[in-house]
Amino acid sequence: MSETITGVSTRDIRFPTSRELDGSDAMNPDPDYSAAYVAIRTDAGDDAVGHGFAFTIGRGNDIQVAAIQALEPFIVGLPLQDTLEDLGGLWRTLVHDSQLRWLGPEKGVVHMATSAVINALWDLKAKRAGKPVWRLLAEMSPEQIVDLVDFRYLTDALTRDEALEILRAAEPGRAQRAAHLLEHGYPAYTTSPGWLGYSDEKLARLAEQAVKDGFTQIKLKVGADLQDDIRRVKLARDVVGDDIRIALDANQRWDVQPAIDWMRSLTSFDPWWIEEPTSPDDILGHAAIRRAIAPVKVATGEHGQNRVLFKQLLQAEALDIVQIDAARVGGVNENVANLLLAAKFGVPVCPHAGGVGLCELVQHLSMFDYVAVSGTMENRVIEYVDHLHQHFVDPVRMRDGRYLAPTTAGFSAEIHAGSLAEHEFPHGPAWTR
Amino acid sequence: MSETITGVSTRDIRFPTSRELDGSDAMNPDPDYSAAYVAIRTDAGDDAVGHGFAFTIGRGNDIQVAAIQALEPFIVGLPLQDTLEDLGGLWRTLVHDSQLRWLGPEKGVVHMATSAVINALWDLKAKRAGKPVWRLLAEMSPEQIVDLVDFRYLTDALTRDEALEILRAAEPGRAQRAAHLLEHGYPAYTTSPGWLGYSDEKLARLAEQAVKDGFTQIKLKVGADLQDDIRRVKLARDVVGDDIRIALDANQRWDVQPAIDWMRSLTSFDPWWIEEPTSPDDILGHAAIRRAIAPVKVATGEHGQNRVLFKQLLQAEALDIVQIDAARVGGVNENVANLLLAAKFGVPVCPHAGGVGLCELVQHLSMFDYVAVSGTMENRVIEYVDHLHQHFVDPVRMRDGRYLAPTTAGFSAEIHAGSLAEHEFPHGPAWTR
Repeated sequence: MSETITGVSTRDIRFPTSRELDGSDAMNPDPDYSAAYVAIRTDAGDDAVGHGFAFTIGRGNDIQVAAIQALEPFIVGLPLQDTLEDLGGLWRTLVHDSQLRWLGPEKGVVHMATSAVINALWDLKAKRAGKPVWRLLAEMSPEQIVDLVDFRYLTDALTRDEALEILRAAEPGRAQRAAHLLEHGYPAYTTSPGWLGYSDEKLARLAEQAVKDGFTQIKLKVGADLQDDIRRVKLARDVVGDDIRIALDANQRWDVQPAIDWMRSLTSFDPWWIEEPTSPDDILGHAAIRRAIAPVKVATGEHGQNRVLFKQLLQAEALDIVQIDAARVGGVNENVANLLLAAKFGVPVCPHAGGVGLCELVQHLSMFDYVAVSGTMENRVIEYVDHLHQHFVDPVRMRDGRYLAPTTAGFSAEIHAGSLAEHEFPHGPAWTR
Repeated sequence: MSETITGVSTRDIRFPTSRELDGSDAMNPDPDYSAAYVAIRTDAGDDAVGHGFAFTIGRGNDIQVAAIQALEPFIVGLPLQDTLEDLGGLWRTLVHDSQLRWLGPEKGVVHMATSAVINALWDLKAKRAGKPVWRLLAEMSPEQIVDLVDFRYLTDALTRDEALEILRAAEPGRAQRAAHLLEHGYPAYTTSPGWLGYSDEKLARLAEQAVKDGFTQIKLKVGADLQDDIRRVKLARDVVGDDIRIALDANQRWDVQPAIDWMRSLTSFDPWWIEEPTSPDDILGHAAIRRAIAPVKVATGEHGQNRVLFKQLLQAEALDIVQIDAARVGGVNENVANLLLAAKFGVPVCPHAGGVGLCELVQHLSMFDYVAVSGTMENRVIEYVDHLHQHFVDPVRMRDGRYLAPTTAGFSAEIHAGSLAEHEFPHGPAWTR
């Protein structure tokens, strides 16, 4: 008897984070971290449910839910095993549906909906395989991995054959690197000290704590007021000393020349990178900023809409650091494309995380990258924010400023039932109290 | 007593166009042209209602409706006159709402929702002023016009002062050009012969008819099958002769090198432009194609997500023709930015139209461009598709292959009440029959 995907349900889950100013930055003063949260059920009788989500920051999470619901008819009734065996094929079906495609194409709410559904299916696939997603991916053959990727619009920068070459070159060391990863984890940096809404005292205290906790890189939000930034970055440098990297994040606040000018005022504090100095769409703008402020690095990508943008950022030499996000582009499949593009161009991937559940998801992608794609952790760090992990069934585990490799089967995406009930919008107790 | 915006209502209107294969192309085989249709009401007692819409091609029009509804709380209760006096300010309020912005930013469903609402307010403003939108815009001072524009992310290519200069340079000839426009209209080209689903016989017949109707340019869809395209383009060239321009449209079908190869196979039929040869996001790809296939021109923009993309297409010399769409970017205000960018770089604007109501809307923008921005119609044509105009209260009027300037107050965006009732999805008679 063949097994079937029997149901997709989507819920509007919101955490009232704006009450504490956690997550405040120059563009996002009062986010309520939210998830349009998907559960995919089957009739397989093994209790495995696939979980995934799109991350938003409050208003509009209901639009995101509506977009995911528009994908439900494409999923319900599919044969379970064939679907999980060919997630590359399903990805193409969802993304190339011509009517839904018009609403992007391949960007915004509809693309994030694809991400939620595809990631939930990866969670389901990994649970059924009894492996964490990073390991499931890292044990696939190069041919299976490239089949996940839609090379449409990529072939002027990366062909299927070139991708195969990259993956085959990394094959011999896989077992050794997986063992190293399980023993030592993957390096992280922390954004916890640097939110704009925090006082200088809180910034200093959290920066000091970050160093004690073993982090070798911290990140500060900048871009609202130059004098404040000079004071805050100097304070952070004084607290952490010269050996700790300080990354800065402007969250898209500036135009091109103002970004250059502002950063020149902060260069004396030796910042490691500036993140999102301008519009995430502005490939040429990032390239101009990068040329002007080197050796300070330019990082971007958390709002990168799809692989076509990442391709161009790399072609234009517009960035030093590729910041993939687990839930904005079309899920695992498109991020495999982004990892392969970054490897082709030799640019390190340092994922965006934080929010709700983004750390849980994206760690799997960096670990897959280390084991089976780039084969290195050099100059690579995953963002870490110490926030909302208690809501997850399989939360990230940190030790000495490093992510420990997940060992539980799945994508670490599942939220506790109690947390869902508490934070369902608008009728959960967190919102009616 | 101050007047107020009292209500916004949004309806899901769909036309079952896929039954006739009108609108079929290489990427969109079966579109049902649809509008997420907005009406904005006031307590002014003058019966003026503002109409606007986002255009989609079927599935997902409900997501688009949900996105517009998310903007309603920002609009209802606003003071009427102050709001209409400062639509630039309202645009910023909508687009920079940090929580909704996360869902783009400035792209996709949420940005198209802004477009629908902003365009509806322009319809309302123009109705209250007793003028068509093109004239209302063209009678504003240069200072008022630049106040409509959000220059964020543009200043490395176009500053407010540069925009003012462009507008001031065009000021002296405004009255003369408005008179010329009213007498002669604005040139159009027609896409009606060229849909992929049509037989050769229908293509030839409609191409011949287009020339008889006075059009000097037609457009054919290409990109599904090379041998078919060679036969169809040759047939069209044989029918229309050497003096009629034949534009081609691939609707994003190709990667970069395939686009170049395919177009080289069609060069002998002297195509005027190739439209959307690849992903609408691929600035560098369009630039590479353009370098390779000159003197055939490259046109794109109907899926251009926002002014940041248009800025880069121009900076990278990626296109010869800027194809604005009236309802994809953030409405009139962002299209004023796009017109100013195109004028700065000296590239002609030939708008995308067709769909449902896109001709009605975008004619106003080209006419404003002629009167008050670029000051010329040279090498400029507005797309025309002879389809669904009967549903509009103030439909476009064509004469000898030219759009006649609208004289009715408003944005020509209003759909007949009977058409709305007939086509409301899913319960209107057009869908239940």
